[in-house]
Amino acid sequence: MVYTGLHIIEELLKGGSRGVLYVESGARGHRIQDIASLAREKGVQVLTVTRTELDRMSQGPHKHMVFQKQGDARSVKHADFYDVLDSLGDTAVLVLLDGVTDPQNVGAIMRSAHQFGAEGVIVPQNRSARMTATVSQASAGADAYMPLLQVKNLVRCIEELKDAGFWVYGADMGGDDISDVAFSGRVALVMGAEGKGLSHLVSQKLDHVLSIPMQGKLDSLNVSVATGIILHKISKDLFA
Amino acid sequence: MVYTGLHIIEELLKGGSRGVLYVESGARGHRIQDIASLAREKGVQVLTVTRTELDRMSQGPHKHMVFQKQGDARSVKHADFYDVLDSLGDTAVLVLLDGVTDPQNVGAIMRSAHQFGAEGVIVPQNRSARMTATVSQASAGADAYMPLLQVKNLVRCIEELKDAGFWVYGADMGGDDISDVAFSGRVALVMGAEGKGLSHLVSQKLDHVLSIPMQGKLDSLNVSVATGIILHKISKDLFA
Repeated sequence: MVYTGLHIIEELLKGGSRGVLYVESGARGHRIQDIASLAREKGVQVLTVTRTELDRMSQGPHKHMVFQKQGDARSVKHADFYDVLDSLGDTAVLVLLDGVTDPQNVGAIMRSAHQFGAEGVIVPQNRSARMTATVSQASAGADAYMPLLQVKNLVRCIEELKDAGFWVYGADMGGDDISDVAFSGRVALVMGAEGKGLSHLVSQKLDHVLSIPMQGKLDSLNVSVATGIILHKISKDLFA
Repeated sequence: MVYTGLHIIEELLKGGSRGVLYVESGARGHRIQDIASLAREKGVQVLTVTRTELDRMSQGPHKHMVFQKQGDARSVKHADFYDVLDSLGDTAVLVLLDGVTDPQNVGAIMRSAHQFGAEGVIVPQNRSARMTATVSQASAGADAYMPLLQVKNLVRCIEELKDAGFWVYGADMGGDDISDVAFSGRVALVMGAEGKGLSHLVSQKLDHVLSIPMQGKLDSLNVSVATGIILHKISKDLFA
């Protein structure tokens, strides 16, 4: 649901509603600035957009500001990691992105993750893609069903997942052929950025390294393609 | 190989060399215009680029124009379909794109195709992605090893592939689970555009319809992700 009234936006923010606040580029006025400050104070993402974009989103009159409440179709959920963790069953899949920042890839990965039964995609707070609208579009609606979770520290998150019974797999060169791996139970899949791969600290925390055998002369596949191939195998083992 | 001399570019074009001619934005001069006209006459793609881009490509002095001859790294090959067909062995993979026009997807598919041992990606001449530079970039170098083949008529091409002993698979809803299909010999994989799927005429020519089982609430995966998943299975059956 999208809100345009300044009073209701303020009330929602005060009440702890999560979502994204879109502010028209160049909009000044004290009231606008106060509400934007309140949003930031509450940890709500504030994005500056064009008038045209705001008109499209509001689909009616607005006062230079639109609040898209979380949980609504086409908004990216920045859900709470612990809430999601508590809700998971004995068989569950989570995808962690280590340095994957391209919003097209993040969106496409959300789409594959949802389609293959994953419960969430986890990104580090500081180094993740910020372009919410692009991520949402590339996810083709998956963001309405599955959260994008931001965590402060990916290494710490992996430790917590292991404590919660997750088996943590990372994709990297020289690992075991995914076809030879039998996935079961709680599975966390960590994908690194193309070219750079997984960061050193993350690599050290993995239970198992996976690879996709290839014949070509290039180093790698597109990261969203590689993620899709591994998730397809995980999904086959866990849910088929 | 990249050429910057106006005389040599002219000679190469006259001699029927294929490639892409890059002309600096705003460059006028009769000589420049004549060479650009000659290129168009010969069916060579002419792209207007910034001075900065041209400097980068030429890696040295140039006269507002750079010709990138085909077959060179980072240029998209529009190789001849019959030449490629003649060169193939008893085990071969070709990918056909039916209405997939997004250059990012076409490039990512070229990358996966090469990495999984395919010999070429085939697109219809009139409805395919024209943004050569973007396709090339998204292919991450795969275009240097594998051709992008343009054919006049995709349905006719499928008929010719069947005559050449190819088994033609198409991805669509309601097909057989790819995990249950054993690929062998000469394999042609036809992928349709997201949302639209395969065109009616193409569907009628298929030997076999394939599907990727999914748990999610969306209709489909990103087309380059879906292509990667199917090519991974084909590659496993054919080359592992």
